[in-house]
Amino acid sequence: MSEAISRRDVRLSNWRTHPNSRWSFQNVREIVPTVEIAAARGETETSPGSDALAGLGLSLPDGSRIAGLDHLAQSHGDAFVALKDGRLVAEWYAPHCDPDAPHIIFSISKSVTGLLAGIAAAEGALDPDAPITAYVPVPPGGAYADARVRHLLDMTVSLSFEENYLDRQSDFDRYRRAMLWNPEHEAGREETLEEVLVSLPGAAHPHGARFHYASPDTDLLGLVIERATGTRFHSYLADRLWRHLDGRGAASVTVDRIGTARAAGGISVTARDLARFGQMMLDGGAAGGRQVVPAEWIDDIRRNGDRQAWVSGDFAGLFGRGRYRSCWYDTGDDHGSLAAIGIHEQWIWIDPVRRVVLVKLSSRPEPSHDPSTMREKSMLRQIARRI
Amino acid sequence: MSEAISRRDVRLSNWRTHPNSRWSFQNVREIVPTVEIAAARGETETSPGSDALAGLGLSLPDGSRIAGLDHLAQSHGDAFVALKDGRLVAEWYAPHCDPDAPHIIFSISKSVTGLLAGIAAAEGALDPDAPITAYVPVPPGGAYADARVRHLLDMTVSLSFEENYLDRQSDFDRYRRAMLWNPEHEAGREETLEEVLVSLPGAAHPHGARFHYASPDTDLLGLVIERATGTRFHSYLADRLWRHLDGRGAASVTVDRIGTARAAGGISVTARDLARFGQMMLDGGAAGGRQVVPAEWIDDIRRNGDRQAWVSGDFAGLFGRGRYRSCWYDTGDDHGSLAAIGIHEQWIWIDPVRRVVLVKLSSRPEPSHDPSTMREKSMLRQIARRI
Repeated sequence: MSEAISRRDVRLSNWRTHPNSRWSFQNVREIVPTVEIAAARGETETSPGSDALAGLGLSLPDGSRIAGLDHLAQSHGDAFVALKDGRLVAEWYAPHCDPDAPHIIFSISKSVTGLLAGIAAAEGALDPDAPITAYVPVPPGGAYADARVRHLLDMTVSLSFEENYLDRQSDFDRYRRAMLWNPEHEAGREETLEEVLVSLPGAAHPHGARFHYASPDTDLLGLVIERATGTRFHSYLADRLWRHLDGRGAASVTVDRIGTARAAGGISVTARDLARFGQMMLDGGAAGGRQVVPAEWIDDIRRNGDRQAWVSGDFAGLFGRGRYRSCWYDTGDDHGSLAAIGIHEQWIWIDPVRRVVLVKLSSRPEPSHDPSTMREKSMLRQIARRI
Repeated sequence: MSEAISRRDVRLSNWRTHPNSRWSFQNVREIVPTVEIAAARGETETSPGSDALAGLGLSLPDGSRIAGLDHLAQSHGDAFVALKDGRLVAEWYAPHCDPDAPHIIFSISKSVTGLLAGIAAAEGALDPDAPITAYVPVPPGGAYADARVRHLLDMTVSLSFEENYLDRQSDFDRYRRAMLWNPEHEAGREETLEEVLVSLPGAAHPHGARFHYASPDTDLLGLVIERATGTRFHSYLADRLWRHLDGRGAASVTVDRIGTARAAGGISVTARDLARFGQMMLDGGAAGGRQVVPAEWIDDIRRNGDRQAWVSGDFAGLFGRGRYRSCWYDTGDDHGSLAAIGIHEQWIWIDPVRRVVLVKLSSRPEPSHDPSTMREKSMLRQIARRI
């Protein structure tokens, strides 16, 4: 517990606000019911420390300079891990951060779910081109009634839904209450996550036309994977993916009142284990001598993001040459770097040319704040090229 | 997940009912927010299996005979572990039970808390003879306003409170809602566990006169330990007691909406780890060459239970020669056996003459059912003498 925060002040109604988030992001299971993602246990690695970051001078958007460690401390950083050629070369933790406590990764969860979909597809359980209704019933009129799994993977569903993270009244709060992340306003009106998802209305444009960032897409993808495989999300994730990464820390995912996993945002893991996950992505889906995610699925992520959908979409300004495919950002830089991003500034940055994987976990007060995100992108890109 | 239970049918409103409890008792963190009790990790022990129980013929109260294994299967048993001279000599798990999944132990939690109080007393942080108000403020009129810590330890507070486990309307439900074990009836009226505890009214008789089984006593004892030591319950428990037991499994305790641990009933551990805890009790507080709980505290439990308070109390029929001291039952049998007991039939049985520790974890449908409890007592007593 950080000294500035009193545990009794952290409630379901305020746990994602600053400064409570400095504590609660590493202690989600006290606030929201969770379920374990089992991993094989290994030895403890020794830490290289943060020396490699201390002397690293980085350029800020305004042209001034900042040392790598100062950036981490000044950007509400909780944890930072760097791998180069698969080896741990730097790590840093804020004083309030326990390296062994799993940290919620928010929408980086989507990129985990996206790879899990690739595994399910290779096993023949899931057809990415099938209609969603092949796996999850959607009443007529719901946006998902005529969309395909591929639209969920690429976030090109024509959905009328805005991610207003601070909303406490309308559809976004209804969604947050259903996932048990916000308290109910009245007893007896509780909905499940699935009930909310399948009720969401569509927008005017056709599916597939534009990238529209909507977390319900990936929560529904999690449900699709569950129904397609006949296995609960956390269990399939543990069995097919997580246990092969040699993860050393505890991991979990939040669940709604009937046990549906928050596949779009509810996973908590340690920074080191998340870096191992990133390394597997860098290595084309291989880890520990085993092909964990099909190489073709990762090739497809690198090659087949729809540039036109991205340019027409919500985040065109973040990555000017970017694309989005199967829940991963192709940053479009000259190294072919990939990224996974979560609110409150959670990042994986993968630079295939330098063979560097960076993980930055944060508790930034604002869920979404464009200048901070633009700065973080720039910092990670620079660190990846110079560490 | 047991085949008979669908996860989506298990809700906060019904998780402790049969058959949901067969699943939920081992998966509490999905239903109620929990926090980890950290333990040192060790090697996996090989299992002796259940051969020692298969041939064991036991006498039922009606004079008929039953094989040990049949009793376990017919009494909603989930897990059974037997230690003799500190060695694992038998274990058994129901087909729906995962040996590695921590199982809620309900009021056996009290016996854990009672030993933790002894540790705090030996450290000079807690005075068992001090008024409760030396540690936790109690408004005038509350039953606890003029009671002492010793009354909490021995459950001799003069408290007007009945443990009606199936109540959904009055004070017991209010208590269950505050600990987040039952859903709220209306939004905006939420209480913390502490608020409920300190508001409970007293009864007419004086403190100390009779054993009155009341879980609020031990939840308040947990709060007293927290305030006396300046350390959260789960953290003090992990640091001073649990990590010294060489526990191999995950452990947790449920917390209320502000993080107060359910010290009277919210702990979940594996059956093997609970047996290790029982072994430490049998060994006079020593484990792994270390004096974990002061020997004097355990001697006091064996010697100083108040026979008159027991005879005047709620459970005089359970142990005819029994006593209760510092959250442990002295069964009063000719071996000086001790017991710890939780609702839905959770048991530790410690026979110091035979140097046997038995753990039986169950998901019996009824929270409290005297004939089943009388039968279980008889079964465990017989097994301890013959295994």
